[in-house]
Amino acid sequence: MEKFEVNILGCGSALPTTRHQATSQVVNVRDKLFMIDCGEGTQVQLRRSRLKFSRLGHIFISHLHGDHCFGLIGLISTFGMLERTADLHIHCPEELERLLLPQIAFFCKGMSYQVVFHPYPPGVASVIYEDRSLTVETIPLRHRMPTCGFLFREKPALPHIRRDMMDFYQIPICWLNRIKNGEDYVTDDGRTIENRLLTTPADPPRAYAYCSDTSYQPRIVEQLKGVDLLFHEATFLSTDQARAKQTQHSTAAQAATIARDAGVGQLVIGHYSARYEDELPLLEEAQAVFPHTVLAQENLCLEVTRGGVKES
Amino acid sequence: MEKFEVNILGCGSALPTTRHQATSQVVNVRDKLFMIDCGEGTQVQLRRSRLKFSRLGHIFISHLHGDHCFGLIGLISTFGMLERTADLHIHCPEELERLLLPQIAFFCKGMSYQVVFHPYPPGVASVIYEDRSLTVETIPLRHRMPTCGFLFREKPALPHIRRDMMDFYQIPICWLNRIKNGEDYVTDDGRTIENRLLTTPADPPRAYAYCSDTSYQPRIVEQLKGVDLLFHEATFLSTDQARAKQTQHSTAAQAATIARDAGVGQLVIGHYSARYEDELPLLEEAQAVFPHTVLAQENLCLEVTRGGVKES
Repeated sequence: MEKFEVNILGCGSALPTTRHQATSQVVNVRDKLFMIDCGEGTQVQLRRSRLKFSRLGHIFISHLHGDHCFGLIGLISTFGMLERTADLHIHCPEELERLLLPQIAFFCKGMSYQVVFHPYPPGVASVIYEDRSLTVETIPLRHRMPTCGFLFREKPALPHIRRDMMDFYQIPICWLNRIKNGEDYVTDDGRTIENRLLTTPADPPRAYAYCSDTSYQPRIVEQLKGVDLLFHEATFLSTDQARAKQTQHSTAAQAATIARDAGVGQLVIGHYSARYEDELPLLEEAQAVFPHTVLAQENLCLEVTRGGVKES
Repeated sequence: MEKFEVNILGCGSALPTTRHQATSQVVNVRDKLFMIDCGEGTQVQLRRSRLKFSRLGHIFISHLHGDHCFGLIGLISTFGMLERTADLHIHCPEELERLLLPQIAFFCKGMSYQVVFHPYPPGVASVIYEDRSLTVETIPLRHRMPTCGFLFREKPALPHIRRDMMDFYQIPICWLNRIKNGEDYVTDDGRTIENRLLTTPADPPRAYAYCSDTSYQPRIVEQLKGVDLLFHEATFLSTDQARAKQTQHSTAAQAATIARDAGVGQLVIGHYSARYEDELPLLEEAQAVFPHTVLAQENLCLEVTRGGVKES
């Protein structure tokens, strides 16, 4: 199975605590790294994760609250000191470019690489990144400012070649791609070997969704159907539901309701309010609705597997 | 003795490591807190220190490299969320206001308090803060951009009243201030009791100096004479002296030479290059020149005492 992992760098919320870092995650798809959000302290957490800085090409920013983006300038500056040359792409609400450019100009003079901003449209689900193996689409959320989650979806893969049949029919290497793409094999003496005998089905594509920050939005369930791993913010306990509503955040039970209704493989909750010394009650509240829930924590790495996840 | 402490929040240098935080310190003078520099992650370190956020009124920024100021916006934003009302004063190079104001306007809308910028003149030693018990003056340094250190100097205190003599002569409370200010006491029957019999000498004023970032600058020695505690950057070992010169930083031996020549009470070195896994060689190099040297480390609190320091 190709690598598809989610590394939690930080899962706290707006107020700093000594228990949690500000929000950031790195999605590792076949050793290409995609960062989601970049709160203060992210670059140190990235260092701690031992993920390779140079493999990070794209950063997705959900919204412009400080706990989701104050770490950008430090990360950009450090990449400059490390003499990065590859472009760094930031997918973000459009105001971010205006806010960051003067800082980059002042603090990162003569930098060895370019930061390229890609503003995405708020309020409408759209594919904002695509490569050979992956698409990333926005998930419009509802928070105190325009906010989007992100859905990382593998593209359908090609079937696996059966090595035993290749040997049996002595099929030359030059046929491999044609067979992977569905052709039957025709032997030198004109016999046709059906494709289904030569291949086993492709790994089903996997998907990871990130939804933070947001109030409870049942309308996102449709977009989340079939997702293998869902990160959904669970800032509050249900006992603080009034506060959740007022600040446009979700409770653990609401996160779990989204997970259950979308039939996702596994739920990971985070973005914990600083008021809770212990997250266990949040976990228990979520598991009562959706048992297959885990707590995010710093330095946790979750493997995205079809229908669920393994911790690695 | 009145409280005069230096709390090291971070003593790393530009490149992030998992061993050290970016530069920040808090000087605690009689429970008024003064921050020096504010690298990324400072607000979490401040939380960790258990110093009271509300006691911090003034921040002094030595220069505008990111590892000395990227934590400001997060700290300012958090103070807003905590509904601070007191003004926050930032003493800094003048460009900082232009860089921070657009961010404060966007990220901290409707904030409950004011950030007041006090640009200080570069290149000339000047008193930039003063209250009843303290002055802060700049120490012009030499780095790749205009940079100043800071010298925290207690004002001369009043002598101590001798309680035994107050009782012996039955001196009324209303005389205390006059005696503290040097007057002799005159009894009801006209006898004069000399002031020197009624008092013991005041505690000698103490001083703390912070010098970072800077190349080796013997000209600062004069200003540092009589300082009780000196923080001087020691980014490099002498074996990397060429690199120190090129980047306008100091070696541990150079820091110690400044301390020795100024006859300070104690030296604390920091701002360690990320290249060193272990700071012991830096300490040994400094101690060979100036034995009374300690290594800065996160969460270290140094008490400033006349002629030296105690760790507390």
